[in-house]
Amino acid sequence: MRKSLFCQMGIAIVLAGLFCGCGTVTPPPPRTVEIDPVQIQIFEPALPDIIESASNPITEQKVALGRMLYFEPRLSKSHQISCNSCHGLDTFGVDGTPTSDGHKGQLGTRNAPTVYNAAGHFVQFWDGRAPDVEAQAKGPILNPVEMAMPSEKYVLTVLNSMPEYVAAFKAAFPGEKDPVSYDNMAKAIGAFERKLVTPARWDKFVKGDKSALSPEEKAGFATYMEVGCQGCHAGTYVGGNTYQRLGMVKAWPDASDPGREKVTKNASDQMVFKVPSLRNIEKSGPYFHNGKIGTLAEAIQSMGEYQLGKKLSDAQVQSIITWLRTLTGDVPAEYTKPPVLPKSTSKTPKPDISD
Amino acid sequence: MRKSLFCQMGIAIVLAGLFCGCGTVTPPPPRTVEIDPVQIQIFEPALPDIIESASNPITEQKVALGRMLYFEPRLSKSHQISCNSCHGLDTFGVDGTPTSDGHKGQLGTRNAPTVYNAAGHFVQFWDGRAPDVEAQAKGPILNPVEMAMPSEKYVLTVLNSMPEYVAAFKAAFPGEKDPVSYDNMAKAIGAFERKLVTPARWDKFVKGDKSALSPEEKAGFATYMEVGCQGCHAGTYVGGNTYQRLGMVKAWPDASDPGREKVTKNASDQMVFKVPSLRNIEKSGPYFHNGKIGTLAEAIQSMGEYQLGKKLSDAQVQSIITWLRTLTGDVPAEYTKPPVLPKSTSKTPKPDISD
Repeated sequence: MRKSLFCQMGIAIVLAGLFCGCGTVTPPPPRTVEIDPVQIQIFEPALPDIIESASNPITEQKVALGRMLYFEPRLSKSHQISCNSCHGLDTFGVDGTPTSDGHKGQLGTRNAPTVYNAAGHFVQFWDGRAPDVEAQAKGPILNPVEMAMPSEKYVLTVLNSMPEYVAAFKAAFPGEKDPVSYDNMAKAIGAFERKLVTPARWDKFVKGDKSALSPEEKAGFATYMEVGCQGCHAGTYVGGNTYQRLGMVKAWPDASDPGREKVTKNASDQMVFKVPSLRNIEKSGPYFHNGKIGTLAEAIQSMGEYQLGKKLSDAQVQSIITWLRTLTGDVPAEYTKPPVLPKSTSKTPKPDISD
Repeated sequence: MRKSLFCQMGIAIVLAGLFCGCGTVTPPPPRTVEIDPVQIQIFEPALPDIIESASNPITEQKVALGRMLYFEPRLSKSHQISCNSCHGLDTFGVDGTPTSDGHKGQLGTRNAPTVYNAAGHFVQFWDGRAPDVEAQAKGPILNPVEMAMPSEKYVLTVLNSMPEYVAAFKAAFPGEKDPVSYDNMAKAIGAFERKLVTPARWDKFVKGDKSALSPEEKAGFATYMEVGCQGCHAGTYVGGNTYQRLGMVKAWPDASDPGREKVTKNASDQMVFKVPSLRNIEKSGPYFHNGKIGTLAEAIQSMGEYQLGKKLSDAQVQSIITWLRTLTGDVPAEYTKPPVLPKSTSKTPKPDISD
């Protein structure tokens, strides 16, 4: 009797397979996923409140000065461009364009990455040519295509021309013989940037709040892990901690920018770039080093194709995006608006767009 | 009537789920996988017959000389160690030990990688400190822990002491004023190594022979791709074409060897190593830069855990191994045995194990 019942069941299963989509068989419930804690560990620790630096301790005075300098357009030759112009703090640290307008409208060749959480990345710039945000801050100010200041000395002339800046440097670097220096300017900007963190729902989840993510978001995380995105985008910053070749399994279509090879002159670094963090990725497009990919869905499809050799389904892409949105964090509202800046004096160089 | 039948089926499916393992329900057939050609493309092209070099064109004379030099123990101070001692051509290009015995039994700190197909890797050594096999060949001969020759000049004294070597260098580098040089020695060894390729069943498959792999092997390939191994191990050599951090998502337990950081002095290169090729991986253990992992199953488990944050099941590991075995190639039999070497003369320095 029992055997006979099982036989019927076997037949019924086969028949059910043939007639799928039939009236009274209910569709499968939405996928529910409980995430293995081991998988969460690879994204630990959660984002810190401040990204500390042994060589540049954070003080209130340094952050206050760094904030002024971050918003200071007189650090550009034209008096029109500040750090915030391309890394807008009220727009998730980016300017939303493929490449940014620099001095006299000149276009850069690389996409301005978000400044939020950047201090935690293992190196700075798309090609890693600066080890930290302090070193990074020195670059664009003197870059003729960006802020175009003619020299460090000229920058110091500008800063020294305003007594409030001189006082702020003294307060930020107490006891130093020569507080108004290019290095200290960079340290102050770096200290400010070390506070530009955007804790997200994901961080709550990493810290143990299992209710911080919806079932769909947990399923999205599972998709992300199954596809293998974490092979490059893991850790606190979900990326930002290694170099990778763009076009790992298939040549990237545009090889005009060789990436890190420009820095090291090693052929082995051709098309190697810093892996960007995926924090706030939903809000910080367009994507990749040249900003040529406009949507997150396209970016994910490209990663599947060129880095993993996988054609992702639309459902997979959407599922991944659902999880990535949990990485969109709270921007520190107290920093998104410009501070009051010192007034220019008669000694302050005038805006210069002569060349 | 129809609806009623479907209802019964629905119930039957649920019941079948409760009684799995029951008598007459046949087990599922072995997984059959047809591989998407797009996935094969990321491993193209198949292995070439010779790994060409623009700067070191392969000639019969160069290869013949390089083969002698490869097996030449008089390129070591003790006259006991040749290239073949640690990279044994009859043992898949390795010596099967974690780290090799060098001069007077000194142990190296890194595992001797296989020489087969190595010419195709993007850089040489575990830390990429040599750009090609020609540059690589110059290292171990002078390394005091390995072959321990005191100087390039001493090497040339050895080679010049044997008229057959002098003649072989002249034949290999015709028209050159100074054919017996350390550079030419390296070029000859390199030319020989460029012929040390091991075409495998996998290459037949890549070239389009769909019957070259069994269903189990195809399923193994699918597992490999699903797990995400190809994120680092892809291309003709199934690896050997990028650097990666060992311990991408979880700190590698033994960080005593910092890898490429030793070469570049950049903290960002800490624990970064060349990704090894997986060709002949079944035959070229023990594994990793220090040879501390003895079995392929352990190696794969470790990669899942430390590079991808995935705990692989035994079934997944075995499935991957099943595919990896298709990368085990045919060693070129004509090269596995030592050639006849020139006789020493009175001018040839004697073996020296004095220090």
